[in-house]
Amino acid sequence: MAPPSSSSSSSPPSPSPETPLPSYAAYKFFSVTSPAPFVAHVQIQRPDKLNAFSEAMWLEFGRVFGQLSGDADVRAVVLTGAGERAFTAGLDVQAAAQDGNLTGAANGGKVDAARRAKALRAQIEEFQGSIGAMEKCEKPVICAMHGISLGLAIDIACCADIRICASNTRFAVKEVDIGLAADIGTLARLPKLVGSTSWVKEVCLTARDFSAQEALAVGFVSQVHEGKEATVRAAVGLAAALAGKSPVAVQGTKELLNHARDHGVAENLRYTQLWNSAALQGEDFPAAILSVLKKQRPTFAKL
Amino acid sequence: MAPPSSSSSSSPPSPSPETPLPSYAAYKFFSVTSPAPFVAHVQIQRPDKLNAFSEAMWLEFGRVFGQLSGDADVRAVVLTGAGERAFTAGLDVQAAAQDGNLTGAANGGKVDAARRAKALRAQIEEFQGSIGAMEKCEKPVICAMHGISLGLAIDIACCADIRICASNTRFAVKEVDIGLAADIGTLARLPKLVGSTSWVKEVCLTARDFSAQEALAVGFVSQVHEGKEATVRAAVGLAAALAGKSPVAVQGTKELLNHARDHGVAENLRYTQLWNSAALQGEDFPAAILSVLKKQRPTFAKL
Amino acid sequence: MAPPSSSSSSSPPSPSPETPLPSYAAYKFFSVTSPAPFVAHVQIQRPDKLNAFSEAMWLEFGRVFGQLSGDADVRAVVLTGAGERAFTAGLDVQAAAQDGNLTGAANGGKVDAARRAKALRAQIEEFQGSIGAMEKCEKPVICAMHGISLGLAIDIACCADIRICASNTRFAVKEVDIGLAADIGTLARLPKLVGSTSWVKEVCLTARDFSAQEALAVGFVSQVHEGKEATVRAAVGLAAALAGKSPVAVQGTKELLNHARDHGVAENLRYTQLWNSAALQGEDFPAAILSVLKKQRPTFAKL
Amino acid sequence: MAPPSSSSSSSPPSPSPETPLPSYAAYKFFSVTSPAPFVAHVQIQRPDKLNAFSEAMWLEFGRVFGQLSGDADVRAVVLTGAGERAFTAGLDVQAAAQDGNLTGAANGGKVDAARRAKALRAQIEEFQGSIGAMEKCEKPVICAMHGISLGLAIDIACCADIRICASNTRFAVKEVDIGLAADIGTLARLPKLVGSTSWVKEVCLTARDFSAQEALAVGFVSQVHEGKEATVRAAVGLAAALAGKSPVAVQGTKELLNHARDHGVAENLRYTQLWNSAALQGEDFPAAILSVLKKQRPTFAKL
Amino acid sequence: MAPPSSSSSSSPPSPSPETPLPSYAAYKFFSVTSPAPFVAHVQIQRPDKLNAFSEAMWLEFGRVFGQLSGDADVRAVVLTGAGERAFTAGLDVQAAAQDGNLTGAANGGKVDAARRAKALRAQIEEFQGSIGAMEKCEKPVICAMHGISLGLAIDIACCADIRICASNTRFAVKEVDIGLAADIGTLARLPKLVGSTSWVKEVCLTARDFSAQEALAVGFVSQVHEGKEATVRAAVGLAAALAGKSPVAVQGTKELLNHARDHGVAENLRYTQLWNSAALQGEDFPAAILSVLKKQRPTFAKL
Amino acid sequence: MAPPSSSSSSSPPSPSPETPLPSYAAYKFFSVTSPAPFVAHVQIQRPDKLNAFSEAMWLEFGRVFGQLSGDADVRAVVLTGAGERAFTAGLDVQAAAQDGNLTGAANGGKVDAARRAKALRAQIEEFQGSIGAMEKCEKPVICAMHGISLGLAIDIACCADIRICASNTRFAVKEVDIGLAADIGTLARLPKLVGSTSWVKEVCLTARDFSAQEALAVGFVSQVHEGKEATVRAAVGLAAALAGKSPVAVQGTKELLNHARDHGVAENLRYTQLWNSAALQGEDFPAAILSVLKKQRPTFAKL
Repeated sequence: MAPPSSSSSSSPPSPSPETPLPSYAAYKFFSVTSPAPFVAHVQIQRPDKLNAFSEAMWLEFGRVFGQLSGDADVRAVVLTGAGERAFTAGLDVQAAAQDGNLTGAANGGKVDAARRAKALRAQIEEFQGSIGAMEKCEKPVICAMHGISLGLAIDIACCADIRICASNTRFAVKEVDIGLAADIGTLARLPKLVGSTSWVKEVCLTARDFSAQEALAVGFVSQVHEGKEATVRAAVGLAAALAGKSPVAVQGTKELLNHARDHGVAENLRYTQLWNSAALQGEDFPAAILSVLKKQRPTFAKL
Repeated sequence: MAPPSSSSSSSPPSPSPETPLPSYAAYKFFSVTSPAPFVAHVQIQRPDKLNAFSEAMWLEFGRVFGQLSGDADVRAVVLTGAGERAFTAGLDVQAAAQDGNLTGAANGGKVDAARRAKALRAQIEEFQGSIGAMEKCEKPVICAMHGISLGLAIDIACCADIRICASNTRFAVKEVDIGLAADIGTLARLPKLVGSTSWVKEVCLTARDFSAQEALAVGFVSQVHEGKEATVRAAVGLAAALAGKSPVAVQGTKELLNHARDHGVAENLRYTQLWNSAALQGEDFPAAILSVLKKQRPTFAKL
Repeated sequence: MAPPSSSSSSSPPSPSPETPLPSYAAYKFFSVTSPAPFVAHVQIQRPDKLNAFSEAMWLEFGRVFGQLSGDADVRAVVLTGAGERAFTAGLDVQAAAQDGNLTGAANGGKVDAARRAKALRAQIEEFQGSIGAMEKCEKPVICAMHGISLGLAIDIACCADIRICASNTRFAVKEVDIGLAADIGTLARLPKLVGSTSWVKEVCLTARDFSAQEALAVGFVSQVHEGKEATVRAAVGLAAALAGKSPVAVQGTKELLNHARDHGVAENLRYTQLWNSAALQGEDFPAAILSVLKKQRPTFAKL
Repeated sequence: MAPPSSSSSSSPPSPSPETPLPSYAAYKFFSVTSPAPFVAHVQIQRPDKLNAFSEAMWLEFGRVFGQLSGDADVRAVVLTGAGERAFTAGLDVQAAAQDGNLTGAANGGKVDAARRAKALRAQIEEFQGSIGAMEKCEKPVICAMHGISLGLAIDIACCADIRICASNTRFAVKEVDIGLAADIGTLARLPKLVGSTSWVKEVCLTARDFSAQEALAVGFVSQVHEGKEATVRAAVGLAAALAGKSPVAVQGTKELLNHARDHGVAENLRYTQLWNSAALQGEDFPAAILSVLKKQRPTFAKL
Repeated sequence: MAPPSSSSSSSPPSPSPETPLPSYAAYKFFSVTSPAPFVAHVQIQRPDKLNAFSEAMWLEFGRVFGQLSGDADVRAVVLTGAGERAFTAGLDVQAAAQDGNLTGAANGGKVDAARRAKALRAQIEEFQGSIGAMEKCEKPVICAMHGISLGLAIDIACCADIRICASNTRFAVKEVDIGLAADIGTLARLPKLVGSTSWVKEVCLTARDFSAQEALAVGFVSQVHEGKEATVRAAVGLAAALAGKSPVAVQGTKELLNHARDHGVAENLRYTQLWNSAALQGEDFPAAILSVLKKQRPTFAKL
Repeated sequence: MAPPSSSSSSSPPSPSPETPLPSYAAYKFFSVTSPAPFVAHVQIQRPDKLNAFSEAMWLEFGRVFGQLSGDADVRAVVLTGAGERAFTAGLDVQAAAQDGNLTGAANGGKVDAARRAKALRAQIEEFQGSIGAMEKCEKPVICAMHGISLGLAIDIACCADIRICASNTRFAVKEVDIGLAADIGTLARLPKLVGSTSWVKEVCLTARDFSAQEALAVGFVSQVHEGKEATVRAAVGLAAALAGKSPVAVQGTKELLNHARDHGVAENLRYTQLWNSAALQGEDFPAAILSVLKKQRPTFAKL
């Protein structure tokens, strides 16, 4: 689907140590660095556990992307998993097995089903909200996956704007195999991201693995690169390209495309009228037009 | 799109005579057998007429899937057409040509246009409801097509969860050629099942044939196999795999994906919270988690 | 995705001079001719400016398609761009740079932001409405693109029913590079036309070029032909095929597919009941059924 | 809100024995008679139990209204409760207390919460469907209440088109007092039927009684009459008036108003275009216009 | 519902001859004058026919309100009917009886039902669009009714923002009595304008008259005045009050309330964020805040 | 609309000092006490400024209701304003006049309109979210108003479940008079709370005062009491009644009624099935049924 990626053959800009972003230094499970101007690179940092997510991690994940959304020094974000083996193996099942709320052991197992249902609703809502923070982040997010990418990995990837992956990536919508319908977003978003419902239902109902090539063929990812390093490099390159463009245009495009997913065309067109009635009054539009006419490179104020 | 199907090369489990399911013995146009535990195999049984549908057939079709939906001994369903030539040639046009309601000959042709419109609305609604019963069936349905698969064949296939087909399948959205816009579901569902609206409009407006390979390329089917036998075997294998998993997880996944098709993401996420607030209190989730941790094979109660 | 196009290898029907349609003679920027019975061929006629659109052009574009919609002598429409170089280069940026309303120079730049917002909303709405007239046109429209097809070219193409292109077509969703989120329909419609949201966001956020082959792979177009001439010939052939079919069936199919895009399945099925309760009472349905049974070629009254 | 009801002061047409409708004779809990041409009068016939509903009753209720919907000899329906004391006291709580499905005692209480949830969903859906059959009935329904009208009485009344009551009626949305949120339709429909959400929440959350006068003031009923007899007489008079009008106009009006409740204005206007594009082709419209111009009384064919 | 109207007791500002607005002088069926600064008074001018509407009239009606919407010299509109007897008697039934399209006599009655349906859809859509132009008019419209106000009078009134009437007004939703379901907007809008669905269905199904007092009680009008003159004076006073306020605030309030009718709360809140993100940047907000703090009377630029 | 309030005539339970709730002691602008078991009484505590809201206040308001929502010791909430003069005079206009973001003075007034729009959207969203926290609070909220209740007072009241007021209350939707369309919720919710759109538009467009009696007549409040003390007493009595009922039933009723406001009937009925499929498995339903049959008073576990 994507053109043969030129970046995979170009000489590497070298995996130079990226600059850590100080205002994100306090996070425990995620590192945030800046590999290029206005680009933030978020890494899931639990490689010894295949980057599996505990509750503390997903709550932190939500906070990281909440902060990025409001950070005027960030115009594009790359998300990757630390280590060679996995983007993320998904939910930390051992931790989940000890969550009294999930297993019903909370309060000595004496809570009735209506009250347990309320607790579960709240817990799922919080979990959905944490992962969904990446979708709500007003800056575009490129999710660059490699290796093991199971279960929650798909929920997370579905919240990104652009998905690319390494050729060794092993995907699966794994939830059915732990006895539940996926509830953190895969079932809500995946059918709207790819072009074959038959394929979506096949992978969601069977929990079978699918490869990078299959993901590219159905449109789940739009680029496949050789190995993790080339994949991350491509993601950073893409992010750097976005970061060089008008943030008014880029962030507006993200917002309007996300709105379009859940609304009819007439509704989206009206929403677009309102959006651009303010956005076009910014300085980016005349500056960009001028730069096109004068064939110059424009610069844009922070947003 | 799908990986080279391993089942097509594996040694055949042999087309052993499948066990008829006694509680479905009274149906006239459909046989229902069980090729594997918890799997029902529904065959359209009118091969001499290329499995074309009369009104009596589509009404029965609705009843078959209504019964399957509530049958706790069934966890996955395969639908095929009997005989070598056709999955189904669609509507029995000769029978339709004699339907006074459709042709306006009913009541001596003296019913005015408003009253005839009411009768037509009711007739279309009943027809839609009968075919749609397969979509409403709470168990996943795999539609395995071969040979002639025209008109109503597409309406039916669109109601399945997973579509696979033999390499010799000949598809067409044929309705325009009999002077009407398809009204039993193809126009409602097909654009939401595949990834190219340009292609959808092309095949719906021209009524041209399309092949198994083209169907795979656009995502209408997710697997193509060599010949009917291999196709049915693959479908049964897939159904058997689903039937071995938690029915709470499988049926929930079907429901939530169907809900996602017609709702925005936020709406579906909330619906999922409610669904899983009850589903997670069943025994399947802890049993499946445990079996993952202990690497055992779980068993699940009926649903 | 499409089968190897037979038209590209068949002997050319020759680019015979098409008959101008007199009732469309007054248009300035568009020629309207008839290459086949009941087929209208609309050409964007500003080749010296790469068919770029000024405000006067898009207003006229809306009127052309409004007229075609109500013209009972037209059953299918082909849209192309005159000249060899471009379908259209999109918005005429130089003209836009002098639009005081867009640049804020109107009224001496003294209009406050709330009042300017009102003017911009109205301007965008009018622009959207003009381009959208092609989608609202009740006859199917085939958009045949070649060469440069940027920015507004995509907005326009998204309003067509079927998109085909020449192998030399160079596409781009260019708006981000002139500092704005595309607001004439690309962001509203493109995600609903193709099967990979990751790809959609990639091309919309980066404004990068994509080729005919890439457009075919993601499903944006459903046919690619060698060169402009073969492409136009294929489009005219397709239109002629549609024009030979029941206009009740063809126009109903367009309407119901467009309705399906923005509505859930249940809603569309009900709408279909109402639509066909009148449409089936026309003469096309019995005539077509009869012609199928008698293997004759039917003719249909105007619509 | 309503004008002083003339019927309450007019001389009684006498409670003459109404003609039973033979095709409805087999129902056990409901009598169906015809007090006027084309009018059906459905009475809840369990006065010794204050017309409280068991499961068998609500299933039969659904069948009665399904039959009325398709009965061309019926153009308007009146629903009342037999006996002097109650329209209906609602759910038969003693029967409900022995429903193993509701109490969890089914299957020896050994069904897990996920499986019990499935059974409960199905049971509520069936119950909703039975009561909702009155709303789906294509003929207008006038619900005439008196005396005790609690719980399910409100769910039922909300499905009628016109609600009137006797001055002695005692209403309450009683469900909160038996430990559940009303789930058969009151919470879905009541807020859309009356003009004060504060009042709706007050009566739904407190389960307090409200009187006929209060019901009239908030718009829940549109007429109050003195005593049951006058109320039924008014309902029958109203039904007879409707039955004398064009059934195409009356049934279309019911359908379009019900559609309007759940759709935006633009959506409803389009739906109306389709509806009337067939309805106006009937004989009723020209016949009624002619009768207006000639000041004659029209007659209309069955529908 | 409304407080005792002070205007009805205040001394009359005298029915001074209102200034005609020159740019509206060409209209044939409507006069447009200005009784107060920034206020336009539209009168239906066909008193000898009780202001009944022919097709030419409703088309002109649409154009009048289209022009008012874009006229920066108008900030509020009053609509009344000329003459003492009627606001409007609705559709001109005699004219309608001769409309071949409506009666089916067009084209010698030889058009089939599908083709006639298309013509009818188009005709209803055009009619709905003409009347709906009043709702789409960006300035608030006060509809002041008196005397006969039947059928189309209600469709029109439902498109106004504020409805007031004289105590002698005689209302009826008359369409059922001419054999059709009202299709120009009453059924779409009336249930969303008043607080009792039972009452709405009663008046729509029976076509009975209702009085000014009843209209006030159900909330259809919000003021009743003694006689036409006092009513028009009250309407003009109200319009003058609106015209003195910030047009950014007034027009925004109209838009957001209309949007709220057809959208859920969350959707409307988001739309409001976009709307006010531009509107608050105008000069009206700081000017009005300042005038409140300084207790001065603000003036506002045109909009 | 409400029955003559018995509480206004009953002997006062005396304004005994209410118990402060310790876990809410840290709030600065709101006191939270408990006048009855499981009842929380929130008072706006800025009487010297007529309880006008600064930004710090509305942020705190959101936090108070977020905490109440999750507090299992609270089953019903009463909101009042401290002091005799005002529930709240609304936005603190003097504070707003110094908000650089609102006035455009932020960043030295050098931020362009697109960037200012982003800041305004975020600010309105945060404000809406803070006030909307009361609607999202899972416990029913009774808003008891008195005296001055302007602008933001209406936004807040619209988020409550039940609104009651003292006879001296002076209401106004005041925003138009400070130059803006109300954007914190009044325009989104008010039209769905009361029964006359004409009245809603009248008060929103004119910003005129309306009285307690008028508020009762249109259904904005459901009870009016004599003076603040009686009003608060009635609110507390109502809250105490709700707190004595099954919290599963009460909270479910709130949720389902709120859902019904923004969804069609079919959608709400399905949602209800899911909700009650878990809720009915709690202990409240059998306990309440039993208590009805045994005529005992039930007790319920916390929720």
